[in-house]
Parts: sequence; C-alpha cells; structure tokens
Amino acid sequence: MTPRLRLGMVGGGQGAFIGAVHRLAARMDDEYELVAAAPSSNAERAKASGDELRLAPERVYTDYREMARAEAARGDGIEVVAIVVPNHLHCDVACAFLEAGIHVICDKPLTTNLADGEKLLALASAKRCLFALTHNYSGYPLVRAARELVASGAIGDLRIVQVEYAQDWLAQPLEHGDNRQAAWRTDPALAGPAGCLGDIGSHAAHLAEFVSGQTPSQISAELTTFVPGRRLDDHVQVQLRYASGARGMLWASQVACGEENGLRLRLYGSRGALRWQQEQPNELWFSELGQAARRLTRGMPWLPGAAAAATRIPAGHPEGFIEAFAQLYRDFAADVRRHQRGENVDRLSVPGLADGVRSLAFIDAALRSHRLASAWVALQN
Amino acid sequence: MTPRLRLGMVGGGQGAFIGAVHRLAARMDDEYELVAAAPSSNAERAKASGDELRLAPERVYTDYREMARAEAARGDGIEVVAIVVPNHLHCDVACAFLEAGIHVICDKPLTTNLADGEKLLALASAKRCLFALTHNYSGYPLVRAARELVASGAIGDLRIVQVEYAQDWLAQPLEHGDNRQAAWRTDPALAGPAGCLGDIGSHAAHLAEFVSGQTPSQISAELTTFVPGRRLDDHVQVQLRYASGARGMLWASQVACGEENGLRLRLYGSRGALRWQQEQPNELWFSELGQAARRLTRGMPWLPGAAAAATRIPAGHPEGFIEAFAQLYRDFAADVRRHQRGENVDRLSVPGLADGVRSLAFIDAALRSHRLASAWVALQN
Amino acid sequence: MTPRLRLGMVGGGQGAFIGAVHRLAARMDDEYELVAAAPSSNAERAKASGDELRLAPERVYTDYREMARAEAARGDGIEVVAIVVPNHLHCDVACAFLEAGIHVICDKPLTTNLADGEKLLALASAKRCLFALTHNYSGYPLVRAARELVASGAIGDLRIVQVEYAQDWLAQPLEHGDNRQAAWRTDPALAGPAGCLGDIGSHAAHLAEFVSGQTPSQISAELTTFVPGRRLDDHVQVQLRYASGARGMLWASQVACGEENGLRLRLYGSRGALRWQQEQPNELWFSELGQAARRLTRGMPWLPGAAAAATRIPAGHPEGFIEAFAQLYRDFAADVRRHQRGENVDRLSVPGLADGVRSLAFIDAALRSHRLASAWVALQN
Amino acid sequence: MTPRLRLGMVGGGQGAFIGAVHRLAARMDDEYELVAAAPSSNAERAKASGDELRLAPERVYTDYREMARAEAARGDGIEVVAIVVPNHLHCDVACAFLEAGIHVICDKPLTTNLADGEKLLALASAKRCLFALTHNYSGYPLVRAARELVASGAIGDLRIVQVEYAQDWLAQPLEHGDNRQAAWRTDPALAGPAGCLGDIGSHAAHLAEFVSGQTPSQISAELTTFVPGRRLDDHVQVQLRYASGARGMLWASQVACGEENGLRLRLYGSRGALRWQQEQPNELWFSELGQAARRLTRGMPWLPGAAAAATRIPAGHPEGFIEAFAQLYRDFAADVRRHQRGENVDRLSVPGLADGVRSLAFIDAALRSHRLASAWVALQN
Repeated sequence: MTPRLRLGMVGGGQGAFIGAVHRLAARMDDEYELVAAAPSSNAERAKASGDELRLAPERVYTDYREMARAEAARGDGIEVVAIVVPNHLHCDVACAFLEAGIHVICDKPLTTNLADGEKLLALASAKRCLFALTHNYSGYPLVRAARELVASGAIGDLRIVQVEYAQDWLAQPLEHGDNRQAAWRTDPALAGPAGCLGDIGSHAAHLAEFVSGQTPSQISAELTTFVPGRRLDDHVQVQLRYASGARGMLWASQVACGEENGLRLRLYGSRGALRWQQEQPNELWFSELGQAARRLTRGMPWLPGAAAAATRIPAGHPEGFIEAFAQLYRDFAADVRRHQRGENVDRLSVPGLADGVRSLAFIDAALRSHRLASAWVALQN
Repeated sequence: MTPRLRLGMVGGGQGAFIGAVHRLAARMDDEYELVAAAPSSNAERAKASGDELRLAPERVYTDYREMARAEAARGDGIEVVAIVVPNHLHCDVACAFLEAGIHVICDKPLTTNLADGEKLLALASAKRCLFALTHNYSGYPLVRAARELVASGAIGDLRIVQVEYAQDWLAQPLEHGDNRQAAWRTDPALAGPAGCLGDIGSHAAHLAEFVSGQTPSQISAELTTFVPGRRLDDHVQVQLRYASGARGMLWASQVACGEENGLRLRLYGSRGALRWQQEQPNELWFSELGQAARRLTRGMPWLPGAAAAATRIPAGHPEGFIEAFAQLYRDFAADVRRHQRGENVDRLSVPGLADGVRSLAFIDAALRSHRLASAWVALQN
Repeated sequence: MTPRLRLGMVGGGQGAFIGAVHRLAARMDDEYELVAAAPSSNAERAKASGDELRLAPERVYTDYREMARAEAARGDGIEVVAIVVPNHLHCDVACAFLEAGIHVICDKPLTTNLADGEKLLALASAKRCLFALTHNYSGYPLVRAARELVASGAIGDLRIVQVEYAQDWLAQPLEHGDNRQAAWRTDPALAGPAGCLGDIGSHAAHLAEFVSGQTPSQISAELTTFVPGRRLDDHVQVQLRYASGARGMLWASQVACGEENGLRLRLYGSRGALRWQQEQPNELWFSELGQAARRLTRGMPWLPGAAAAATRIPAGHPEGFIEAFAQLYRDFAADVRRHQRGENVDRLSVPGLADGVRSLAFIDAALRSHRLASAWVALQN
Repeated sequence: MTPRLRLGMVGGGQGAFIGAVHRLAARMDDEYELVAAAPSSNAERAKASGDELRLAPERVYTDYREMARAEAARGDGIEVVAIVVPNHLHCDVACAFLEAGIHVICDKPLTTNLADGEKLLALASAKRCLFALTHNYSGYPLVRAARELVASGAIGDLRIVQVEYAQDWLAQPLEHGDNRQAAWRTDPALAGPAGCLGDIGSHAAHLAEFVSGQTPSQISAELTTFVPGRRLDDHVQVQLRYASGARGMLWASQVACGEENGLRLRLYGSRGALRWQQEQPNELWFSELGQAARRLTRGMPWLPGAAAAATRIPAGHPEGFIEAFAQLYRDFAADVRRHQRGENVDRLSVPGLADGVRSLAFIDAALRSHRLASAWVALQN
C-alpha cells in the first residue's frame, strides 16, 4: 500500500480559479493528499479557505516562508508544494520551498524574467529537488500521441507550424471592474512585462515545441493592445524560423470575440500532417500525403503508447481539461516516488524548469523583436 | 468544516471498469471518503484490491451481507454504498444495505426485472433510505440545460424524439474470448433478459425522458442479435408514442462499426429543436424556427441555472464523462446531507428508484412488443 | 461535333422551383438544348415563361398532348422531355410522350399509385423509350463511391441501415397561405395519398437502396400529421427488415425545426461503416472495425471509378446539389445517345422506371402498415 | 426576350482546368453563348477544341490578335472575351481585346507586374470597356453576406484578420513530371516572380479585403520554397497592419499536406466575429460578444440582400465552387447590359481592374519585404 504524497499549496484561496483546478487535478488519481496551505496572506481569508479544504488549523499559513520552514521541520511535512500565486511571486515562493528541500509544482509562466528562471534552475539542481511546470496542455493524451507520431517520422520532415491560442475574455476592459483575474493579468507589476504573450502565448509556444520536438531559432513578433487603457498586450503575432528550415506562425489573442479557449496546433511535414485543438481534445487528425485524413480518437487501442498511458476511460467517453491537468500531477507523483527511491530522475516525465526557461527566452525574444519593429531576433537559450 | 461522507463499495475490484469510474467520480468533488469495500468474493483478490484502495484491512469484505451488517454496527460505518456488481446482483446487494439503513448509489439498470425494482422501491421507502441510480448522462451540464430549456417552453410543444446509442465494441464475439465485460453483459443469467436493450438502450430511454420530461405511453420494438452465437440482443429498434401526441424513435446497437459511445439526442418541438451528443458534450445546439442555429457551450454565463450548477471550469475548457458522472455523486451528497439534517428529500436531485422502475418498465415493454411481432404495447408503470 | 440533345419541358413555368433546377441541371454539361415547353396551361403565363426561356413562340404549348404530337411530327422535334408537374399528372403526361416515342426524364415520385407505375413500365418497354426518374441524390459522386464501396465488400455484410430525411419547411401550416409548393404537396388530389412519405420519404428509401444494393422485404410504419388542419402526413417513421437479415430505420419529417434538407445515410456492416449527409456532400466517412475513421473527399484520385466519373472539379472545390442533379442529365444523355446508335441500353446509368415502381411499392406498403397499426407488411414488387 | 451575350475565350483548350470552369460558369445562368475561341496556338489542337465546343470552324482561332480583329469586325462578333491563359500573357491578350473595344473577363492575377496592371487600367478606361477579374471566391453568397454584415457594423470595429489559403498539391515536385499546371505555375517566366504568393496568396488577400472592406497599409512577409529544385515560393507568411489599427496574418501554402483548397477567413471586431471557409461554403459563423455563436446558412430568408441575390436554390441544398464562379459571370452580364443601355457602370458589381492593381501591389510589397528580411513595407497603390 503506497501512501499518498503529502501536498501543500501556496495561493488558491477562495474564489481563485487556478488553485481549484490544481486541487481537482491532484485529487483525481488519488496520488496526493492536501495537508497544508498558505491560501492567503489575510488571516481571516486563510482560515476560511483552510476550513473549506478541511486542513488542520495549524497547517494553514499566512506566510509562505513560514510554511516552508514549518513543513520542512515536521516529520509528516509536505513532500510537494503547488504554487498558484500570480506570476511575479513565483520565483520567491519557489525559492523558499526549494531551499527547504521540497519538490515544486508551479503554474506557468515560470517567472516574469529570464534571469529569475535561470536562478531557479540552478537552485533546484543544487537542492536536488524536482520541479514541474504546469504546461497542462501537454497532459492531453492525444497531444502525447501527436508528439510520438512526429518523433516516429509519421509526418516526415517538419515544414510548417501553425499554432494559435485565441480567447475573448479580455475583449472588454474587465480589469477596470472587479474581475481579479483580469486585474492581475493585465498589471505589469504582477504579471510581468508580457500580457497575452506570457499568459497564453507561452502555452501556444510550449505546445508547438512539445509536439514538434523543435524550438524556434529566430522569431519576428508584434504585440498589440486593442483595449483602450490596457497596460499590457492583449494580442500577439509571431513568425517562427527553425534551424531545420521549418517555418511557422503563432497567434495569441485575448480579444478574439467568440473564442473561448481556442488553443489549436497544426503541424505539416513532408509526408503528412497533424491537427489538434484543445476544445475537441478527444480527436487528433492525421493526414498522410495522398490519403484520406484519419480521425484518431483518444482511447483507441492502436495509438502510440504515450497516449494510452495518459488516459483513464475508453474511447467515446470524453476526457477533458481536468483530466489532462491531472495527468501532470499523476506523472509527477511517479517521478517523485522514483526520486524518493533513489532512482535517477534526470528527465522529468512532465514539463519542468528547462521548459520554463525556454519559454521565458521565447517571451524575451518576442518583446525584443517587437521593440525592433518586428526584426528577426535569435532566441537566447 | 463539513466532513466527507463515508462511502463503501460493492464490486469494482481490480480490472473492473465501472468501479474505477465510480471512484473517480466520488473523489472529484471531495465529498466522499472511500472507507470500506467488498471488491470480490475471492479473499485474495479482495485483499489486493483493498490494498490498492488503501483501505483498512478489517474493512475489506468478501461478503456484502457481512459488510452491510458490520458497517451498520460501527460508529464510523459507511453512510453510503456504491453498488457496481453485474446486474443480476443489484437487487440482493441493495436490499442488504437498505435493510441496514445505508443509502445506496447503484449502477443501472436497477435490476433484471420489474418486480425486483418495485420491491426495492418499497423497501427504500420503508427504511427511509435515499437511492441514486447512475443514469450518469443526466449529469452533463448541457443535458441539464436542455432539460431546463424544454421545460421553459423553448422548443414549444414536443413533437419528435430521436434518440440513439450506438457502439461497436460487441461487433465481434468477444464473449468467447477472455473479455469479462463482454462475457457477463451477454449472459442472460448475469445481465438479465435484455442485452443491448438493458445495457445502453435503457440509457437512451432515460436521457430522452430526462430531457423531454415525457415518458412514452406505447412502444413498438424489435430486438436483433447479429453476432452468431450471442445469447442476448445486440441491436434494438423502438418506435415511441407519447400521450401528448409526440412520436419518436430509439435505436441502440453494440455492433455499429465505427461508433464508440454514440449517445445522441434530438428533440423537435413546434417552435424549435435541441441537439446534443455525448461525444461532444460541451456543446448543445438550439434551433428556433426561422432563425440560425445557435451553439450553446457549457460554461456560458447566460445558460439556465441548472447547467451552471453542474460545472466546474469555464467555457472552452472541456469537461467530460467523469465530470458528468461525478455530478451525480456531488448532487447525491447534498441530498444525503439534507436528509441527515432532517430535511425532506422527497425529490432527489439525481435519478433514483422511480427512474429505475420506469426504465425496467420500458425494457419489459420492449421485450413484450418484440415477442408480439413489434405490436404496440403500453408501458405498465 | 456531337449536337446537343433537343429537350422539351412540361411544367416549370415562372416561379416553379423544380423546373428551374432541371434547367440548370440540363445546361451544366452542355448536352441538351431546351427547344420546346408547355410551361403552363394558361396561355399568358405560358407565353411569358417561353419568352424568358428564349423559346420560339410556336414551340411554347399550353397543352402537353398537343406538344407531344407536334414535336413528334417535326424533323427537329424534341428527343427528350422533362416532366416537372405535380405528382398526379406524371402518369398522363409521361404516357403522352411515350406514345409519341419521346424519351422521358420525370421528377419523382413516378406516379401517385403503384398501378400507374406499372402501366408506365409496360408502355416504355413497348415503345422502346428510355425513362429516367430524378432520384437526384444518386447523382452525388460520393453517393456513388459509397455504393461501389458497399458492392466491393468494404463494410462486409450489411447489418444496419439508418436513413433519415428531415426538413422543417412545413413546420407551420404554409398551405393555408399563398405558398404554392406547400399547397400542392399537402393536397391529396395533387400529391397522392402520401405527403412527406412520398415527397421525401421516397428519396430516403431510394438512397438507402441505391447505396446498400438491398430493398427491404418487410416494413412497419407509422405516419403522423403534426400540423393541425393538414390533410397529409408530415412525419413518417419506418422500421425496415431485409431478406439478408439486415435491419433498419427510416425517418422522414417536414416539421423538424432547424432542419433544412437533412438527408443522411449510415450503413453499418460486419466489418465497417459508411456515413454520408447531403448537406456536406463532399465528404464520405468510412470506418473499418478497429481502425480510425477516414474522411474520403470528392475528387480524391484513389476513390472508386464511379465517383471520378461523376465529378467536374478537383477535391476541395465543393460541388453541390445542382451538380449532382446535372449528373443524372449527363448520364442519361449518354444513355440516349447509345440508344440512338442502336446499342442495347437495358440498364440505364440513372434511376428509372424499375426504381420508380419499387419506390411506389414502398409507399404503398408504408400506407398499408400504417393502417394496420404498424404491422409488418411485405413489399409487393 | 433578352438575347445571350456573345462570348469568346482565349486559352482553355483541351485539358485545361480553369478554361472548363469558366465555361461551366458562363453557362450556368444562361446569360452567355460561347461563339468564338482561340483555344491554342497549335492549329490541330485548336480545331479539336473548337469541335468539342461546337464552335463554327471560322470562329476558332490560333492567334488571339487575329481573333480580336476578326470578331470586332463582325456584326455578330463577341461582346465579351474570357482570358484563361497563363499569367504572363494576361496583359498582351487583354490589351488586344480592349483595343478592339471588347469587354474582358480575365483570370487572376491580373498580370505579372504592377506596371502592366496600371497600363490595363488606363487602357480600359480610355476604351470604355468593362473588365472583370475572377476573384471568384467573392461570388459565394455567404462571402457577400459577411461583407454586408461587416459593413453594417455587426462585428464593431475590425481588430483582427486571420486569413489562410492552404493546399498540398505541390507538396512534391510535380513540375518535374508531366503536370502542365504545376509546370507553368512554378515557372517564373510564365507565372511571374510570385509562386504560391501570386497563385493563391492573392486570393487570400483579396478575400480579406473584400469582406473587411480594408486594405493593409503595411505588411511584413517571408516567402519560402520547401520543395527542392522549385524555382518559386511554395509557402508564404505575411503580417498585416491596417491604417485603422487592425492587425492580421495571412498564410498561403501549396505544400501543406492534407489540405485541399483550404481558403479560410476569420474577422474579429470589437463586438463580434465572422468565420467562413471555402470548403464548407454554405455556412457562415457569426459570434457576438457574450452570445452563442450562430450558424448562418446560405438561403436563409433573413440574410442580407447581397447573399440572397447570389444564390439559386434553397437552404440545405448545397451550392459550390462553380455556382460562386458563375455568380461573377451573372453579375458581369448585368453590368455589360447596363453599359450597353448607356447606363453608368463606374462601379462594377464584381472585382475588376482596381482590385487587380491592389492585388499586384500586395504581391509587390510582399516580395520587397521578403528581400528586406521581413521588414515592414508600405503598399504602394
């Protein structure tokens, strides 16, 4: 009987969206037990959240530093912490727990600047801690199937990447009302210098990289702010050049009316193509040159092994966003257990710090290109 | 801090599909804690399952009757039992727990014959126990939105019901191999006299009834067995007459090549129509006469309240089968708590015994009509 | 240089829908020249239509009998006549032209009763005239591909037929206004005893037969009239039994809100399945057991030959309803030319009288079954 | 009785794709009669094509200059000429017919360079001839509906343009075999300096402009040639800036495996969005902020007038590529007749020379930007 991993959470108090998602994800496969949290720096709100989460009062904290210290000191302290605070705090919170020797699951983007990302990379390595970054779209079974198909040569040499992430929830100036999500995500002090680019552009870039196995070598970008008074970009257009000769386009927007969570990827190679979109995650389109397109569905027995390992129920019984998110938690639990058994975990089975740093380099390059009138700039990583 | 409900499970040992689904569902919203089980009558297999589920050894049973007795005797005994055994055992197992005063969540169909269904109805009433039946497709938020739209008159007077449930997993004689699912579901001794009709036809009938708010008054049916050597129907065609004057067709098949879990409902009224299909559960099509069809999506703020109450994450972030299943667990937990507080729970918020009995009456009528060369027969209930 | 065939038309005066479609179809492939017509029995309206069609005034008739006589007497008289009058006139008009030795293209249904259909069959045979019936949906290239795939064994033994034809244009009592289409199609004196059944149910039955290669041996039917005051059925439900053991369902409705011209066919066999729908006619879905569904598109080079012969432009350039209709005209022109060269044309390349008679037998059987409380009745043909 | 317009054709001999499309289009609405042609400079092939087209032998030419002269001299000479030769000949052929006072329908792109385009613009004006350019996608009824919706403010202020045109027919080096289409379209001497950019990128740019009502003021482009040995670009990526502040992306590729004729347009404004794709041309998606997306279908009575005027058959009866192409012929016939009646036709009802020149300016700017490492360049027009 393998006990559940003891999990803590920083952020995610009452009303927070992403914290609730992390908890749903952690619970799904029964590999974690939430035993401690710092849900808010406000004592009253922290207590209320702690009660709701059925935590022991002494393990509900208002200060993440204290939480790191106290939990590290307990015999039954947390083994893993989930960090679900606004972007500008990721680095400090993560450092506190890494210093305490606690493994980390951090929401993306990793930090608000490349230097901080590299600092975390060094620290985790020094502390021999595992660090997962919730680029959650990589948890979808058909995303993993796509990655495996590309790696196996199913589409031949990659030629074209078309990736986009379109939403409309910021089509109006919600940040001037009482929408807390909108407020912090459009505030440079909390979200960092990239708005839409950092929030969802980084997801799009990661998805393309994850599936294609290639990182752009140069990009040309333009950021736009459509909503009057907004302080960060709400729309991003990027051209991609790959060292292999492949070319691509990335579009991310939070003002695209009618779009809910339209993350879509198309990869075209010399022999075939793959298409996937997040809103219909249980199907993956595979075209081979000169043949009819095939609709691959999650759960089909003949899919690549990676897909089979990332699903729970048969084909035709749709899985969704939470299941994909949970997959990262499940896989990371296995990584942590291997680490605890003393096995080598040089390669995480989920996105981690290296992905986070590459993502920051992408954001950094996009900001530079934008300032240079969309000149092609190299990614530094 | 409301404690979790203490849950037991009968059936669902290692390798069982539906037991795992029930556990995922019970866990999702953190309203239950699985504390006891009778996973198998085989002691060794029961123990292995119990370990895997992290149960205390003394609460892993090989006999459901003993489990009912022992749990009822404990101060911290289970409050709810989930029954996930083959159909022919539903009645006996449910009786044991009802006799012990324990609330029941039972997989469908309720029993293998109408008389047993009515017996359970009487017993639960006598024992003042709540009884949920997992017609899980009613847990989808857009199914609930559809029901509410119909009730509100959005499509006018109901005219036409088109419902179908098509699968292909039994297109070949799997029951002659080592597929346990196929074996018991095609064995009249275990599944009852209805094969495809009872397994998925009953889901289709329930979905149509749930959304339309109407039960057929007469049906005309033909059952077919396509796979040589199979002992139960694997294909069902039914015509529906409603007292309101509406007409309909129901098709269920487990030999329809290329179909995974194709449960689809269309309702046409005098002023509009609704379409929903389980494999794309996050969208509901609504047509009003003379207007463009509208694609309603789960999570839209202006959907009827019933939908909003049955979802966890924003539009565009797909939910799936497990979430819908979990909704029944979540709603039933609320019912149980109300009951425990002494409130009146005459109307469950999930399908229950009355649904189960109507479903058995439907199955019974279909079998009768089939024997009478598809003559129209009245539903007796 | 092969001259165009000289074409006449009976019916199809100003404002008629189907006459205009026949003319578009006749013109598309440049195999016909419209040179004579009896567009109306009203002299003024006939003249106006004749002018619009650029016909010589002496070849614009008000009496189809006179037209048949006069055209047969001319050296440059019509070789083919298109009959696009209401159903109750089909038989008399067709007889007049067959008697005159003129080939016929007749709109469906062939006649309003089985006896008349058989009379036409005998007469055409005696007069050695060719007779095409515009079951136009058989002209779609992917319908022909589907037929060829079924015949080649691609789906194995046929098990299940699901065919439906849903419209909503009669969801309200348009016949009480000034809609001429609605008026004659709901008038038993003009349309015959079958309303929706004859108008579109017959199309559905033909499509299923055309693609599957099988005619039902027995059917069980119920006809319904939903719109108050309507004199013919506007909704039909039929169960199908085939001598091969296959089973099926046919649904046709003209009151299904939100449906425009929803003719859809699904065939399931022991090894695979095919799905096609008229509103997306450029794609055909092909599933083989245990494999991913494939989306076959019109114009793909590797489609069966029948499809290639029935298309004009490359894949991705959509063809539509008119093109499919025109295909019957094109194919019939080739038949007529072969006949004129003295070749044997025992097998038309388009639907003809035998199809029409089988279709009438289907209608006749459905009406009988309906009167017998949906009893199974044999098709007499 | 209005006589048909007398039509001539240059190019379009046996085996040519686009010539056949023009003839289908000209024939559909019966407004033209093809009476003369210069199908080939080879006498034998010209004669064979002329016979096939049932032309009088004396009106089948091998030299377009002679044709222009001879036809202009006849009392019954052609009134309109359709030019369907490779791009590099468009200008000379068009000049010859304009000089002869004959109206022109020319395939796109107008010419292979901007200067020639401007020459034609001046000449047509001087000769008072009408000149249509077959940007045929503007003939689709729902494209016209979209344009009218945008103009009416339905989506608010335009923010984002996403347009793409993806094909795969050149994914392999077909031009090295015997594919004549591939050969001339990849040969700079025949196609001009732009390959994919000129062939289909120009269609995408026109469609975006036609519907949005805006022309980009600046673009940033990169052209790529993926197939080894190819002499022109087969893939184009362009960023778009509009004077209004709108932004956009244009992608065109002829090596995108699995894509047939994937022309797709999405326009996002401050209040709504429209989506249309050529392969499903009978539906147009319209989203308004905060409301469910609506599926507008061709033929719906309440669509803007522009759509109604560009369709022939009811909703649900799909129209396709040929119908849309034919729409330009039909509309241009009306323009020519107005011109012949002496009415002012300053504004053609179809794309014409001004569109062609703007399109050449777009191509020219894209080539310049590409040479400048994707620098933003202004469109000069």
